[in-house]
Amino acid sequence: MLDIKHLFHDTIVAHATGNSRSAIAVIRVSGARAFPIVEGIFKGKMDFENTSHLVRYGSIVSDQNIIDEVLVCPFKSPKSYTKENVVEISCHGSPIVVELIINLIVSVGARIAEPGEFTKRAFINGQLNLVQAEAISDLIESNSESARKLAISHLKSGISPKIFQIKSQIIHLLSYIELELDFSEESIEFADRNQLVELLIELQYECAELIESFQFGNAVKKGFPVTIAGKPNAGKSTLLNALLNEERAIVSSQAGTTRDVIEGSLFIEGYEFRISDTAGLRDSEDFIEQEGIRRSWDRINHAGIILGIFDSSIEDGKELENLILSNSKPDTNHLILIANKIDLISNTFEKRRYIGLGVSLKSKEGVKCVREELIKYVKKNYTPEQSVVSQIRHVKALEKCLEHAKNAHRELLSMNTPDIIALEIRISMQALGELTGEIFNEEILDNIFSKFCIGK
Amino acid sequence: MLDIKHLFHDTIVAHATGNSRSAIAVIRVSGARAFPIVEGIFKGKMDFENTSHLVRYGSIVSDQNIIDEVLVCPFKSPKSYTKENVVEISCHGSPIVVELIINLIVSVGARIAEPGEFTKRAFINGQLNLVQAEAISDLIESNSESARKLAISHLKSGISPKIFQIKSQIIHLLSYIELELDFSEESIEFADRNQLVELLIELQYECAELIESFQFGNAVKKGFPVTIAGKPNAGKSTLLNALLNEERAIVSSQAGTTRDVIEGSLFIEGYEFRISDTAGLRDSEDFIEQEGIRRSWDRINHAGIILGIFDSSIEDGKELENLILSNSKPDTNHLILIANKIDLISNTFEKRRYIGLGVSLKSKEGVKCVREELIKYVKKNYTPEQSVVSQIRHVKALEKCLEHAKNAHRELLSMNTPDIIALEIRISMQALGELTGEIFNEEILDNIFSKFCIGK
Repeated sequence: MLDIKHLFHDTIVAHATGNSRSAIAVIRVSGARAFPIVEGIFKGKMDFENTSHLVRYGSIVSDQNIIDEVLVCPFKSPKSYTKENVVEISCHGSPIVVELIINLIVSVGARIAEPGEFTKRAFINGQLNLVQAEAISDLIESNSESARKLAISHLKSGISPKIFQIKSQIIHLLSYIELELDFSEESIEFADRNQLVELLIELQYECAELIESFQFGNAVKKGFPVTIAGKPNAGKSTLLNALLNEERAIVSSQAGTTRDVIEGSLFIEGYEFRISDTAGLRDSEDFIEQEGIRRSWDRINHAGIILGIFDSSIEDGKELENLILSNSKPDTNHLILIANKIDLISNTFEKRRYIGLGVSLKSKEGVKCVREELIKYVKKNYTPEQSVVSQIRHVKALEKCLEHAKNAHRELLSMNTPDIIALEIRISMQALGELTGEIFNEEILDNIFSKFCIGK
Repeated sequence: MLDIKHLFHDTIVAHATGNSRSAIAVIRVSGARAFPIVEGIFKGKMDFENTSHLVRYGSIVSDQNIIDEVLVCPFKSPKSYTKENVVEISCHGSPIVVELIINLIVSVGARIAEPGEFTKRAFINGQLNLVQAEAISDLIESNSESARKLAISHLKSGISPKIFQIKSQIIHLLSYIELELDFSEESIEFADRNQLVELLIELQYECAELIESFQFGNAVKKGFPVTIAGKPNAGKSTLLNALLNEERAIVSSQAGTTRDVIEGSLFIEGYEFRISDTAGLRDSEDFIEQEGIRRSWDRINHAGIILGIFDSSIEDGKELENLILSNSKPDTNHLILIANKIDLISNTFEKRRYIGLGVSLKSKEGVKCVREELIKYVKKNYTPEQSVVSQIRHVKALEKCLEHAKNAHRELLSMNTPDIIALEIRISMQALGELTGEIFNEEILDNIFSKFCIGK
């Protein structure tokens, strides 16, 4: 582990509550000089060095001028967010007040924090691991109840307690294998090969499960992609509006109205569905419309859920089903067929037989069923107890872990020498160390924390 | 004084840190049930009833589900912002987290606070007077250093300590006059008429000074209105851009380019100047341009400072000076004449004589002088020690106070009966009571606090 604690000479300061005008704003100061810096500009009763977690009222003063009346609260190291000395200043929520106080703090020796720098320090100082740090950012960015829940579960217990149990057992056995290297001339086996194989199988299984969970975890975090597809005039835009309950897409009876992809978010039972409307699928002479149709197919191929809609008064839906299934990926796409305009069928003598959910968007009949189908799909693919990965960085680490666990497994089965087995196991374990941040480098950290918001 | 303390059965809750996504967010709960309400949803070590001003880490929990990891801090009545029991909850700054926590708190017995309701309670409970309450709102809304300073001074010491000294002396004498009413048959004078006259004169002087200060106070708060006026092609838009250092207005050499009024804020030494560019002043056949010119004159009449700009290579500025002075109000308008294009003069044999500040906007020569003229005007009209009024409500109360002080003064001089004198003095004093909120009604309070932001 690279020791970069020595980089933290600086005391940092940042606004922690966003840029909008509000009742109060919070400014955070962290670092070795946090207490003397704030003490120097604070007028009020507070013994910073000998107090912690206590809030006191007073003023921030510059050259005997009161900048603002504030509350301050010192958090004494190590009992703070960063494990350094921290002071939180709660002032009135005016941008000019915040700016003046931060400038004053900078003028007496602090510097403006980089995005995520407080959490970076918390990580370096062992307050939380990298998965938890990323969960904090996910929590702040969460748009839906399910995204919040997933982030909180990662914050509380990481991504998979089980995999790390396996890890510690493997590392225990690895130490025996490495001991064998010292006795390599004698071909003694200290480590139980059978136990090791069993653990590696378990590890591979867990890794594969977690990797597979990413598609779901990512959808929980960013919203499940849902694409509405169908021929012109099937009622695609009307379906989007009916689902979102607002006039989001322009609806008209002229075929080919929707050319751009139109999006909106629908929330059902705390899950977010990012629904996009697309151009009608048909052979078109119009160049712009052709481009719209090309984008439609692109969308459909990337969608998790496809809502295939057709006019049930003129067709039975089998053509659309074939068209979509032959153009999409069955393992990542889930098609829900919707037979629109069922109100028109009852008026025709010859009742057509249609496949899929029957709806009448004109009378809103059946829209509720479409919502139910969406949430049913989510619940079928996920149990709340399941460990779920939602970061591509985690997937990559798990893939590396899996690959080398496989290699180690193979070498064990082919009775190879302990040095080769030990090497593969070490790399596999290292990948898990990178996942939690036991092993890290500056580049990885920069990548992670630069995406954080200011003041966190 | 109307007692509305009994209205405060409710415990109120609101988000106090604005709606943007941020590192942390603060939720405030205030009222009799604030402690048990938060205690019921908080998992962590905190003895709410026996602790104050102490911050503790824990979780907000709903049905055993963790909503977020938070810091809570109870403020025990009366040592809180509202003087009621208050809890501040510091959570992660995601709108969904904030919403869930607030909904949870509402579900267990609080209600969403109205705008300004925390400060309204602070006022009713005697934590601050009405002038201070208004100053808090002004502080949050402040855009400039001078606006912040003015708000802080009102928060610390009200608008005029002197006027309230006079008030208490007058009220002392008033009690004697009212005593005379009991002995009216005997025509005894308990109150010293001469002293009273002196005090009423002082009061009238102070009121008049404060009323006059409003134009300045209002400009400090909202920015000094500055209007650029002149004939077409004099360089009005170029001056606006040069002052603001950005391409704010569209500049072209075609006469009549600027039709709408264009605005921007300029900050000099902590003062805000709201500078507006106007359509060129000329006789125009173009209907739209005529409307633009009409608006220009409207602006000029309402401006505090007029920057009259002319082309010094073709005229001496006297015509523009006369045009503006004859169309504007000398007591509220201040004209600064600017002779543009002085670079062209040196190229002509016959050097024209011009009045006003010589500038060349082409080379930016002299722009600094314009800035200096602006700040010079502000400083000439204001000393920092001066009491300044910045609320129209205060002006109205002071005008009422002044009017009835004048009446009382007149009645005293004409040796009228004590009942008439006492009545006028009482109304005059009442006006000051309304100013600070000693006397108030629900309508006044609603008017004031409905303009506050949520959570304050």
